[in-house]
Amino acid sequence: MTETFTLTIAALHERVDAIFLKAGLNALQASALARVIVAGERDACKSHGIYRIEGALRTVKAGKVKPDAIPSLDLNEGSAIVKVNAGGGFANPAFEVGVPALAARARQFGLAALVINDCTHFSALWPEVEAVTEEGLAALVMCPSYATVAPTGGTKPLLGTNPFAFGWPRKGSTPYVFDFATSVAARGEVELHRRAGKQLPEGWAIDVDGELTTDPEAALAGAMLPFGGHKGSAIGTMIELLAGIMIGDLTSPEVLDYLGTTTLAPMHGELIIALSPEAFSAGRRGDPFARAEALFGSIIGQGARLPSMRRFLAREKSEAQGIALTTAEMEQLDRLLEKGLDAVA
Amino acid sequence: MTETFTLTIAALHERVDAIFLKAGLNALQASALARVIVAGERDACKSHGIYRIEGALRTVKAGKVKPDAIPSLDLNEGSAIVKVNAGGGFANPAFEVGVPALAARARQFGLAALVINDCTHFSALWPEVEAVTEEGLAALVMCPSYATVAPTGGTKPLLGTNPFAFGWPRKGSTPYVFDFATSVAARGEVELHRRAGKQLPEGWAIDVDGELTTDPEAALAGAMLPFGGHKGSAIGTMIELLAGIMIGDLTSPEVLDYLGTTTLAPMHGELIIALSPEAFSAGRRGDPFARAEALFGSIIGQGARLPSMRRFLAREKSEAQGIALTTAEMEQLDRLLEKGLDAVA
Repeated sequence: MTETFTLTIAALHERVDAIFLKAGLNALQASALARVIVAGERDACKSHGIYRIEGALRTVKAGKVKPDAIPSLDLNEGSAIVKVNAGGGFANPAFEVGVPALAARARQFGLAALVINDCTHFSALWPEVEAVTEEGLAALVMCPSYATVAPTGGTKPLLGTNPFAFGWPRKGSTPYVFDFATSVAARGEVELHRRAGKQLPEGWAIDVDGELTTDPEAALAGAMLPFGGHKGSAIGTMIELLAGIMIGDLTSPEVLDYLGTTTLAPMHGELIIALSPEAFSAGRRGDPFARAEALFGSIIGQGARLPSMRRFLAREKSEAQGIALTTAEMEQLDRLLEKGLDAVA
Repeated sequence: MTETFTLTIAALHERVDAIFLKAGLNALQASALARVIVAGERDACKSHGIYRIEGALRTVKAGKVKPDAIPSLDLNEGSAIVKVNAGGGFANPAFEVGVPALAARARQFGLAALVINDCTHFSALWPEVEAVTEEGLAALVMCPSYATVAPTGGTKPLLGTNPFAFGWPRKGSTPYVFDFATSVAARGEVELHRRAGKQLPEGWAIDVDGELTTDPEAALAGAMLPFGGHKGSAIGTMIELLAGIMIGDLTSPEVLDYLGTTTLAPMHGELIIALSPEAFSAGRRGDPFARAEALFGSIIGQGARLPSMRRFLAREKSEAQGIALTTAEMEQLDRLLEKGLDAVA
């Protein structure tokens, strides 16, 4: 059995924050990054947990993200669009700067948008969805990625794995949240198959000639496929249009041109739309929150699951018992803290 | 070879309009319905063309839609939400009443929503998407349906086939438009397989016991499946939340309770979100419309297609050469015009 160390959520946050500070991030960048990374560990989303620290540091070291950026908020008075320029820093602190204004505008106008520009984004979208649902608002969040997915009927990488996320606030409960790649699988899953020497399931990817392949090497050289055939391809394209082009930021092919690699965190923009159930339902019969509970009850009642439930169960456990890390993980954190940017290639 | 009659778009509109007037619809309802039905025929979308007239008339005859409804517009000053109460009539005239205000608000605030309540909806969403893109705005449109789709992991119909549609305006060209059911297939396609005595493809549906089935009878008695597994199921659920519950209107199970059948057009609400590319991209580099053309060029350039292209080609042909109907179709139109509501069960 592997020896494990158990840390409180606060203690892990302190360690991760210290690593980023040591690597030269300012306090705003470091603490926002530590929050999403610790949230990943807390919710047993290992793929978005401390595993991500090195990628963030590599991106800093490559000069592709500004470690000392200060996001600037453009309140854009009279508009339902709030903009935050991340100043070449990470998306997470920019989001934190923008969300109070987003919530205020959504309450004022019924719906509002938060645009984040010039940011490097490496985290899941669900922490941002949850920050909006905590304000009692529904949230739609999307962003491009790097060009790794072929549009349906095509043969070459063009779209990103473009995540699409949504949340609905639940009173006295964790929210209804989904957050998924619009490709069949996340690129990291293909990479994990490659490392493990395992074949991919059918339908994940095509090779450089556009033929279906189950070989992870051939898939990484070729292109991944959108989920749900032409429908997922259309949604992925919509995300390029709305969360890339419309907000005046990079599309997935432009991100890849800029970075020249998929091993660094991508720089692009992000679109968050918040909707007020109170404003939309005003004057109509029925409480939208109570009605939503009835819908969720009907889903669970027939044996189906709500998305994110596994994650919320893990969170409950972490909050009660702390977060368990292996000896190797603890040593890795120590090494990153000691060596800072020298710890990464 | 079947004998065909060719009518101009205007001539077909006049005939369909006359049928609805004869059946007791007021001029507002009749002309809006004729527009979407003729648009379906014009674009070679037979499933949303004159085939739909009877269903609309059956719904009138059953007393489930008000043929003389006058939509009422609630401008909701200071808000980015415009509401139209369809007054128990069809969605289409309500949409037409609301769209100028929606466009004005989207230009004013950057984004805006049009809520249609208490409407009967039987048409595709793309005519509405296109009406918004004609204003130079991007559009997201969604509505529930009747409960015919089981959530992933479940066994019973709960979600509707809940269409999800999007449009992006293209200068000097037909827009980028997608409009699809969030089930694997539209319910009408299952019905067509049943009538033709053909088995369904794998993965479309489950039987009453929740087992996968390719038998259309068993599928109609059981439940259809969401597209793309749990991801499509999540999007279908989002549509129940946003375009049913949030707007204070019926969810798909409530629609089915109200109608007691899937043979009449469903009554519920609809949500249209309009976004201004000019407002979102203000102050950023690059023209969003030109950049979108580059993206579309990259899609087409690798042999993939843009959604709706088949439809736009059919439209071009209809505009140049008129719409061809069979003798049987012409006779059906004559019969509907002569008999009005007596022509339907």
